[in-house]
Amino acid sequence: MFHLIEPRVLKGFRDFLPAAEIERRDLIARVEAVFRGFGFVPIDTPALEYAEILLGKGGGETEKQVYRFNDSGGRDVALRFDLTVPFARFVAEHRSLLPMPFKRYHIARVWRGENTQRGRYREFTQCDFDCIGSNCAAADAEILLIMKEALDAAGAGPFTIRLNHRGLFTRFLQTLDAAGRSVEVLRAVDKLSRIGRDGVLELLAGELGDKRAERIVSYVETKGGWDETLDAMTEAAGGDNPDALRLRELRGFLRDTGVQDVFTLDPAITRGLDYYTGIVFETLLDGLPGIGSVCSGGRYDDLCGLYSREALSGVGSSIGLDRLIAALEASGGMAKRETYAELAVVCVDEGKGGLYQRIARIFRAEGIATEVFFEAKKHGSQFALAEKKGIRWALVPSGGCADGGGDCGPVVLRDLAARRNGVELSVKEAIAFLKSVKDAPLSEDRA
Amino acid sequence: MFHLIEPRVLKGFRDFLPAAEIERRDLIARVEAVFRGFGFVPIDTPALEYAEILLGKGGGETEKQVYRFNDSGGRDVALRFDLTVPFARFVAEHRSLLPMPFKRYHIARVWRGENTQRGRYREFTQCDFDCIGSNCAAADAEILLIMKEALDAAGAGPFTIRLNHRGLFTRFLQTLDAAGRSVEVLRAVDKLSRIGRDGVLELLAGELGDKRAERIVSYVETKGGWDETLDAMTEAAGGDNPDALRLRELRGFLRDTGVQDVFTLDPAITRGLDYYTGIVFETLLDGLPGIGSVCSGGRYDDLCGLYSREALSGVGSSIGLDRLIAALEASGGMAKRETYAELAVVCVDEGKGGLYQRIARIFRAEGIATEVFFEAKKHGSQFALAEKKGIRWALVPSGGCADGGGDCGPVVLRDLAARRNGVELSVKEAIAFLKSVKDAPLSEDRA
Repeated sequence: MFHLIEPRVLKGFRDFLPAAEIERRDLIARVEAVFRGFGFVPIDTPALEYAEILLGKGGGETEKQVYRFNDSGGRDVALRFDLTVPFARFVAEHRSLLPMPFKRYHIARVWRGENTQRGRYREFTQCDFDCIGSNCAAADAEILLIMKEALDAAGAGPFTIRLNHRGLFTRFLQTLDAAGRSVEVLRAVDKLSRIGRDGVLELLAGELGDKRAERIVSYVETKGGWDETLDAMTEAAGGDNPDALRLRELRGFLRDTGVQDVFTLDPAITRGLDYYTGIVFETLLDGLPGIGSVCSGGRYDDLCGLYSREALSGVGSSIGLDRLIAALEASGGMAKRETYAELAVVCVDEGKGGLYQRIARIFRAEGIATEVFFEAKKHGSQFALAEKKGIRWALVPSGGCADGGGDCGPVVLRDLAARRNGVELSVKEAIAFLKSVKDAPLSEDRA
Repeated sequence: MFHLIEPRVLKGFRDFLPAAEIERRDLIARVEAVFRGFGFVPIDTPALEYAEILLGKGGGETEKQVYRFNDSGGRDVALRFDLTVPFARFVAEHRSLLPMPFKRYHIARVWRGENTQRGRYREFTQCDFDCIGSNCAAADAEILLIMKEALDAAGAGPFTIRLNHRGLFTRFLQTLDAAGRSVEVLRAVDKLSRIGRDGVLELLAGELGDKRAERIVSYVETKGGWDETLDAMTEAAGGDNPDALRLRELRGFLRDTGVQDVFTLDPAITRGLDYYTGIVFETLLDGLPGIGSVCSGGRYDDLCGLYSREALSGVGSSIGLDRLIAALEASGGMAKRETYAELAVVCVDEGKGGLYQRIARIFRAEGIATEVFFEAKKHGSQFALAEKKGIRWALVPSGGCADGGGDCGPVVLRDLAARRNGVELSVKEAIAFLKSVKDAPLSEDRA
């Protein structure tokens, strides 16, 4: 016998078995419905691009993690490592075809050869939504509103979206004569939740001295209601300015829409990247703050700078699907299901496979997903298989189908959870019954 | 100024702009709903795998086309070039977790560094559905039924699914003492539609001599009704045998289900691959036979042979999404749309952005996707933008929203196609109106 190849996947890569894939797709469908409801449109870009396009002027952390190689035509290519760079290239390339402001979402795989510790994967799905070509408060507010609606639709439970403004922070640093060190300061502040107040103080003191370090830490620790916090931040930034005004406007918009409760102002939010220039935000689940932000982003000045001289401002956010799924699983917020089928047609006579499909078609046409079994094993074995597949109801056909269609039957429905058979029904009656239990509030636990 | 990078994609790769991506997603959603209705479950596998896994014993055409490289850890890896090999690895790896028969679908990108002529791409989406772990006629029939239902759901128009049986063909070759040359014969017959009768005759004559070549060509040209054709094929194969019986059984099943009309028996269908051992099938659109098969597949004996000693039989099919989209576009069967939004909220006062979102939320909650505009440009420009975005209706808010929610308004709806404003309505009335035009049969052209 020849040598078998051991079936295995690469480290950091995953198979999705049906229950996990159904969960992932259900979650994506929910957030996608929200994006579409706002008029956001989907796009897609190639997984593989010229390395020069993806890495730009290159260097840095990213480059080390990128899957990069020469293709058989000798081209220097790489797998995309995020959806932002391809979006910038896409916009520069198709600029004339995109009505501005352009609102798009993009849900797709990306690849990074990262360290695979701590639940990090080398292949994962990003879910980005951005509005470009407008630099107004209404665009900022819309992205924030979509975050709220999408997380609600996902069943994420109570959460808080924390907001800050990069410009305001820079103004504050200017009052300290420390704006030139903003990258280092942002990096230090970003570590607050991990290394604590003293750790950040120490880092900052090394850069700017004890006094300014203390000022910065007190600034980012400002707590309180939105108005109070904003007043303190405005004062620390040297008085009224356009960035503070933007936050005030946003506050008004969110209140007018009636969604202000989930938003807070938090001067400690910085979002590490240099990229952002306006508002920045992240989202913690109230019940699971430890897993980190499940939805983050901000406003940027110049999306396509590498590829075009037209400066396009935008605001965007990204849902961390893997984290969100982990959170939903931890909180029991998403019932796992192994199949979409609600009904299994038991095989009584293998010669009647065609009739069983005819019966199943009638249920499917009524929106009841129906799997047909092929082998005339004992009813008990077939019930067990249906249960193993996660199907709630079984149908035992006791008659045939009148030639030429019409009603088939009679049939017997078995409740596989209660392990109980019902009385003989016509197919029409069985459909009415299954619809009634589906609509009944008591059956929600089966959703 | 620094040097700009030219934004471009690799040859053979594509961006999907919103209209194309919406079309693709709509099509996928339609066929996916059919798969789910039959109890088929989705899975996913990594884009990148060990080259050894994907290429097996290697060699041949495939290997040349594969994107293969060493990752930064020195592993010999490759991008998947189909969904069949990863499925085989998946089944071998997770065998104990999969209830048999296992019915799965997998819709995902694959990569092949092929010649990019003739509309072939180096990155494309495959859409496979298979049932493994059962070798009965009912499983064959179910795959065929799903093909019919999925193509109907896709709006593919009239089509014919052509069926043959590899085993029966082999039996026929045995009567000619030519079974040992079946690969060459299959390859030649597969070219019938491209090189014509004489071309195939010449190829076959070179392999087997004029007389046997003539016999084979007459065999594959057998025309007529199912029963007549099957009788002729059975006789040519030396009389009754299990493969002919399978085709007879299948015929009965499809008739019992009431879907026999779209199926024909066609001895010329071979499906080039060695892989298939039972039924094989392909689908031509009646109106566009020239684009080739839009859905093809067959039964195979031993899916996981490279990775496991357990022989798993299965039957599966694959929808050619790119071809199907091309066909739908050619036949006008799929109306292009640029957005999911049905309504645009015109911006009258930029300070009221929060209220506009409040109004939009009410429409969204009623299932009417609503895009909010941010800038208080002239109404005419905003109407033009809405039209450019493919939105049918515009809403001009003339009032505000009562504090604390409830009804907002009044509003004016504008029919952007007819370029006509309606009378002032409450938000409730506007929702009722939009729902009524959506449900009206006359509005189907806007679907």
